[in-house]
Amino acid sequence: MNTKLQTLIHNSPFIRNAWYCVGFSSGLPENQLKAITVLGQPLVLFRTNGGEVAALADRCPHRFAPLSRGSLQGNSLQCGYHGLRFDSSGRCVHNPHFPGVPPEAANVPVFPAFERYGAIWVWMGEHDKADRTLLPDFSATDERSGWNRVEGYLHVKANYQLITDNLLDLSHVQFLHPFLANDAPPSPQFKATVRAEQRGNTVIAINEFSHSSIPPVYRLLWGQGEAPETCQLRANMRWDPPSLLLLDTGAAPVNAPREAGPSLPSVHWLTPESQWTTHYFWAATRDRLLGDATVAAQVKRGIDEAFRYEDEPMIEDVQRNMGSSDLWDGQPVLLSIDNAPVRARRIVEKLLVTERDKLTVRTA
Amino acid sequence: MNTKLQTLIHNSPFIRNAWYCVGFSSGLPENQLKAITVLGQPLVLFRTNGGEVAALADRCPHRFAPLSRGSLQGNSLQCGYHGLRFDSSGRCVHNPHFPGVPPEAANVPVFPAFERYGAIWVWMGEHDKADRTLLPDFSATDERSGWNRVEGYLHVKANYQLITDNLLDLSHVQFLHPFLANDAPPSPQFKATVRAEQRGNTVIAINEFSHSSIPPVYRLLWGQGEAPETCQLRANMRWDPPSLLLLDTGAAPVNAPREAGPSLPSVHWLTPESQWTTHYFWAATRDRLLGDATVAAQVKRGIDEAFRYEDEPMIEDVQRNMGSSDLWDGQPVLLSIDNAPVRARRIVEKLLVTERDKLTVRTA
Amino acid sequence: MNTKLQTLIHNSPFIRNAWYCVGFSSGLPENQLKAITVLGQPLVLFRTNGGEVAALADRCPHRFAPLSRGSLQGNSLQCGYHGLRFDSSGRCVHNPHFPGVPPEAANVPVFPAFERYGAIWVWMGEHDKADRTLLPDFSATDERSGWNRVEGYLHVKANYQLITDNLLDLSHVQFLHPFLANDAPPSPQFKATVRAEQRGNTVIAINEFSHSSIPPVYRLLWGQGEAPETCQLRANMRWDPPSLLLLDTGAAPVNAPREAGPSLPSVHWLTPESQWTTHYFWAATRDRLLGDATVAAQVKRGIDEAFRYEDEPMIEDVQRNMGSSDLWDGQPVLLSIDNAPVRARRIVEKLLVTERDKLTVRTA
Repeated sequence: MNTKLQTLIHNSPFIRNAWYCVGFSSGLPENQLKAITVLGQPLVLFRTNGGEVAALADRCPHRFAPLSRGSLQGNSLQCGYHGLRFDSSGRCVHNPHFPGVPPEAANVPVFPAFERYGAIWVWMGEHDKADRTLLPDFSATDERSGWNRVEGYLHVKANYQLITDNLLDLSHVQFLHPFLANDAPPSPQFKATVRAEQRGNTVIAINEFSHSSIPPVYRLLWGQGEAPETCQLRANMRWDPPSLLLLDTGAAPVNAPREAGPSLPSVHWLTPESQWTTHYFWAATRDRLLGDATVAAQVKRGIDEAFRYEDEPMIEDVQRNMGSSDLWDGQPVLLSIDNAPVRARRIVEKLLVTERDKLTVRTA
Repeated sequence: MNTKLQTLIHNSPFIRNAWYCVGFSSGLPENQLKAITVLGQPLVLFRTNGGEVAALADRCPHRFAPLSRGSLQGNSLQCGYHGLRFDSSGRCVHNPHFPGVPPEAANVPVFPAFERYGAIWVWMGEHDKADRTLLPDFSATDERSGWNRVEGYLHVKANYQLITDNLLDLSHVQFLHPFLANDAPPSPQFKATVRAEQRGNTVIAINEFSHSSIPPVYRLLWGQGEAPETCQLRANMRWDPPSLLLLDTGAAPVNAPREAGPSLPSVHWLTPESQWTTHYFWAATRDRLLGDATVAAQVKRGIDEAFRYEDEPMIEDVQRNMGSSDLWDGQPVLLSIDNAPVRARRIVEKLLVTERDKLTVRTA
Repeated sequence: MNTKLQTLIHNSPFIRNAWYCVGFSSGLPENQLKAITVLGQPLVLFRTNGGEVAALADRCPHRFAPLSRGSLQGNSLQCGYHGLRFDSSGRCVHNPHFPGVPPEAANVPVFPAFERYGAIWVWMGEHDKADRTLLPDFSATDERSGWNRVEGYLHVKANYQLITDNLLDLSHVQFLHPFLANDAPPSPQFKATVRAEQRGNTVIAINEFSHSSIPPVYRLLWGQGEAPETCQLRANMRWDPPSLLLLDTGAAPVNAPREAGPSLPSVHWLTPESQWTTHYFWAATRDRLLGDATVAAQVKRGIDEAFRYEDEPMIEDVQRNMGSSDLWDGQPVLLSIDNAPVRARRIVEKLLVTERDKLTVRTA
């Protein structure tokens, strides 16, 4: 590992050895360059002629022009300022002003990248650890037979962990999200199971309700007039570090199998742009009313608006109230509902220490 | 007094033990939450069922959500994120996720508040010193029989003391404010009395003119064609720390009692939002052409435009020219006209030192 | 030299003893005040009754109001806040609030200024070194018999040296500027001469091409259908410190004298506003199609758009990629094309050291 990356890992407030989502596959057509900043590192993304995804540092080593202002010339990326060309491994393959092979110093840092679950993943740490099997399983939201998917994106002006906190404590749904909440008067038999589980570095926040009222989103998916009076409802959120979440959610008639009602699993992939801004990629997949464009639009809009107009302003205001201080500096009063989010924060803290320590051992 | 407040007072560039205006009474209807930042402290204001004003820190102690994004539930303020509820004394009275009485640590800081002179006043320092009689008398601008009032607000991007400087040295009126200035060619008998008086911590800037030309605003208030050729004119500004001003101003025929001409007393309440931004609340009350909505609008617009388009850009440019440095760092050349504003600055400096010293003695 | 200026020179990232362009002569009519910030110093520019240009610090010594918010009263500049008046040497000549001669402390710093080459030049350093003959010769772009001139201005959010780099390495033209580039397929006899020359502190970047294709701008200037198949083309850039450039450019038939084809010499005067922003004044003068307003507009628009939409975004992005770090901190890979710009940077570095050292000797 080179010295520059070692320094980065030592100083980074982020876990570097991890896969981060940098966009949906559909967002990167061939022959296009896409710029995105991840963990403070500007990247340029493009596809080779074979369709493979490449991620390079978005900075020409000559005069620091963003390569994303350049153009693709066959399989190589040409800088738009003075015309140097780079292949998908970052190697400088052409200097139009001087004959011969450009020196190694003219190469651009490359970041391991691949596609899975309809998204593009980039590894921000040590190359020899970039194991694709480390990416958790998100196949539950793949577009596939019997399931229709919608996707969305938000740019949130807050630290990514404040969004993790939000997603791992869904008790806020009844206060913030009328479209998603089961806040009609509960049946006398209503019962809630809310608890956190931890398996290794995976945290699961269980939210299960029997004899619950039906949130508007499930009334919609059940179909006109078909929803029962009360239902069993689940919204179980799985978190893996640093910030990759899967929500297993759906409604079913009381005492019936989950397949008897609609399901709407969703993924929530949080990619820090900087310490104070976050790329939030989400996708949700339904098993009802397939091919119904109106319902697809309603689901997409419902989820997007819940995030955009309800969660996002609240989380950004929380960040403003915190300024640049750490959550713990503010001495928050912890409640029972903080169980899952605090577990996730402790795991991130542990992994950050481990990543730096391992580095120290190896470079000593 | 708690340790946090002690630290605040020690580090504050502001006098804490003082009443600050946070808005007009008319600006806070029942069932509304209002957010305002005072001395860098975000506050949420609301009314109890009885109509009493309450001011709490605008930050939930759980996850730091602004309480002003919440809602009123009867007499208590419910956080919009996870539903904690607080009464008007800041006590956490309800945690919807856990039975029983919430712990004291979940309480929110409260700030003494009351209403007077058509405005809401908040005490930013030690509670046991929050004496309502310390508020200077501003009844001269109360809406009452024979007097009509207009109110206004500006958000000024400058330190509040630059606005005090402006108001305590009205020699700038002839250069900046045509609507307010007596800048027609003076009569041969014209005589000006400009001087500063100090009584304790009160500074009064006297500006009195005999055989003066009549400023447009008084020609307007005198009524069409009724103003005399020349007049006696007064614009006496009273200042009390930290930044509460009353302007006794009016015009009258030469050698006649002041009641023989129009009066337009006004208040100027400056509340620091931060070191570099200020809430400027003003109100002006006239004793002529009562009930004339056109005149009311002309007076309000005339004063507002003088502040907004003449004073405010000048003061903000002065702040820009000063950057973050103190007035004294810039070694200003003091003129005779600086007598009153410099007295006010010296009093503020003295009170800041006193406030910190007293604290040291008591906490030693 | 006063202590304040000594401190400025010691701390300045800029060469102070130099002429900087602060605008075109046509941009400063009589009876107008113009504000411009140069090397971080706000200036106010105006003309005396005789038409002479004056440059004062844009800050009243009384209360720090920008003098550019004031007005001209005959030959003196009146502060718009409290009415102090200053003559073109910065002397305070009138205090309306107090009789007699104002004290010397009320004077405003003055900066030597004069007009030449259709522009206003200000000296930002020691007055006794303000030698007008130090200004390089830019008469090649004067408006005169047989030559027509167009002028332009850009505010660039980048350090001025990044713009120097751009201008001294015109190899970027073929990648960035279709209107200016000779990028049609070259003739077999095409020959390029690209090299840098240095004479004292003057750097010249030679770019000469024979049997070249004709850039669109010269096809335009040659006149409809009159341009030959191939041409000899020159674009020789002369640089003098800190950042004053003259481009000798034109096209001619192969083996013919330069007068046989159109010339379009241009000046490029870069004036740092701050470390991260630059005033870019340019002018270009043609010897063909004189008096043709359409061609004048096309030339002005062609050059302006090349700078505004092609160079400027690229240079600003380079600055963003560099943050506040120095070029050398980023360890750029230098290419042959960097010869001229690196020479210019080395000269600036040398002059900065010399300016500080001389000062040390004299003040010791």
